[in-house]
Amino acid sequence: MIDIQHKLGFSPIKWKGEALVVIDQRSLPSKEVYLRLGSVDDVAGAIGDLTVRGAPLIGITAAYALCLIDNIRDNIAFEESCRRLINIRPTAVNLGWAVERMAGFRRHNLQCDNLRDLMIEEAQRIHAEDADMCTLIGENGNGIVHDGCRILTHCNAGALATGGIGTALGIIYTAHFSDKKIEVWVDETRPILQGARLTAWELAKAGVPFKLISDNMAGHLMAQGKVDLIITGADRVAANFDYANKIGTYSLAVLAKYHGIPFYAAAPSSTFDPVCPDGKSIVIEQRSGDEIRFIGLTQVAPSDAPVYNPAFDVTPHELVTGIITEKGIVRPN
Amino acid sequence: MIDIQHKLGFSPIKWKGEALVVIDQRSLPSKEVYLRLGSVDDVAGAIGDLTVRGAPLIGITAAYALCLIDNIRDNIAFEESCRRLINIRPTAVNLGWAVERMAGFRRHNLQCDNLRDLMIEEAQRIHAEDADMCTLIGENGNGIVHDGCRILTHCNAGALATGGIGTALGIIYTAHFSDKKIEVWVDETRPILQGARLTAWELAKAGVPFKLISDNMAGHLMAQGKVDLIITGADRVAANFDYANKIGTYSLAVLAKYHGIPFYAAAPSSTFDPVCPDGKSIVIEQRSGDEIRFIGLTQVAPSDAPVYNPAFDVTPHELVTGIITEKGIVRPN
Repeated sequence: MIDIQHKLGFSPIKWKGEALVVIDQRSLPSKEVYLRLGSVDDVAGAIGDLTVRGAPLIGITAAYALCLIDNIRDNIAFEESCRRLINIRPTAVNLGWAVERMAGFRRHNLQCDNLRDLMIEEAQRIHAEDADMCTLIGENGNGIVHDGCRILTHCNAGALATGGIGTALGIIYTAHFSDKKIEVWVDETRPILQGARLTAWELAKAGVPFKLISDNMAGHLMAQGKVDLIITGADRVAANFDYANKIGTYSLAVLAKYHGIPFYAAAPSSTFDPVCPDGKSIVIEQRSGDEIRFIGLTQVAPSDAPVYNPAFDVTPHELVTGIITEKGIVRPN
Repeated sequence: MIDIQHKLGFSPIKWKGEALVVIDQRSLPSKEVYLRLGSVDDVAGAIGDLTVRGAPLIGITAAYALCLIDNIRDNIAFEESCRRLINIRPTAVNLGWAVERMAGFRRHNLQCDNLRDLMIEEAQRIHAEDADMCTLIGENGNGIVHDGCRILTHCNAGALATGGIGTALGIIYTAHFSDKKIEVWVDETRPILQGARLTAWELAKAGVPFKLISDNMAGHLMAQGKVDLIITGADRVAANFDYANKIGTYSLAVLAKYHGIPFYAAAPSSTFDPVCPDGKSIVIEQRSGDEIRFIGLTQVAPSDAPVYNPAFDVTPHELVTGIITEKGIVRPN
């Protein structure tokens, strides 16, 4: 097993006893700013405004947040905090999963004197398990990456989105550090530009060769035979293997099908939601129109332009070659 | 025939005797700034930096530019100006077409005392013919737009791109002002954001209902059955009806095919290049990586991130339902 995480040179989240310290992902790539989150309020704000983002990472962050409640034995205050955290971002499954695991753990240990310490240990276990899952996803996915492979990815499913080396990028890092010569096409991923701001920053820091493109260039690259493999993350996988991921994933899946290019998602098994029967049942978060009308301080559309801004789309399982998990590769078809 | 142009409330280019006055399209939508172009230098700069853009409009602008040469009878200076203008943007056919038409006209009239006045009249004819072509394209295209139609368009093929009401938007305006209830999905069109900045601005000014999306949302809309028709402009149509247009057009065409949605280009016949056998022969302009790395003053990627930035892509004729021209609709298949 290659120890990749220490080669990346950063960690998006660190538990510091009485608070969490996180990279402010809104400031990347121009500034590397770390913020201290000392309360559920702080964490809820940071998840809501995308200071912290990425389905696995917001689950881990929420787990730590529940260790920051003042009177940790007050059931009403605790349940209110759980509800509040879960409702911030409805699409990803990890947030609800982590909060429910912490709530169940707390119920079992409510009589213990050292309840807060035990809960911190449980949050740290969630964090460490996620890191281990990323490592295993990287190893399981490495088998589909050939030497010379040109891999396209969308959004950021990297170390900045998880407790470890990432899911889609975890595979890319594992291939790169096992001395395969690979190249990565990075979709900039409008509107929040996680590809341009985060994935490009991560890959540059790790020394992985890449080129950045705008999302609408992916089809043109495929038509020219310049893409061998597509790997995205996943925010929620339904029981029939339809999956929700960052808006634009579905278009890539259709383009991959048309061009005969293998199309994979990479996600830990905590992303699988067996209660959700299919993609139609996944709630798609709608976000503010200003994410489209403004980029930083630059106005790019009339200030009153009507906007449609879904944060995610659903890719039906028919278009998916495989879903790479810590347990192996699921092939839906 | 409905007089639509006066309802739009702006003109992107006006000939003022000794100079051209143009809308600075880089300043839209936040500011409506008009610039005076008094020389070939000025015009070459304005075409190169996208102050003036849109395949038909840069042809018209170049035609006027050739009336601004100091010694208009000096063959060497004239040919140098022609070459210079043609080379600024190699993909669109209209630029070369307009320059060659002006050069041929000048050769025929070189002995006339009032050569400059005659050339100005010829440039004005090119301008007026383009306006007429837009009107006819609008009428020919109106037949494919049903009441209640939800039309998706990409980039800006509007009044800001032509000498008249536009090509793709000309059809949309004609449908709207003939009292059809239509709605338009506007692709923001990275990297230059002509959809967000220009098409949204035009449609808002004309009172046409629209919603702005990022380019990667188009597939998600199609999957939900929210798109009835796609119309784009075209920068160069090859002899086999493959056509080059703004990057992202090809991806839309593949998505339209997959979802069974009619996919049309709208372009005057001057955009057809019978000498170019097929899409593979079309030169694709590559532009600066900073168009991806920066949006206005906002840095959205690491400043040294490697970038791939083709301005256009090629859509093969198999994916095209029809090309709407001033003469009627060509159906390639």
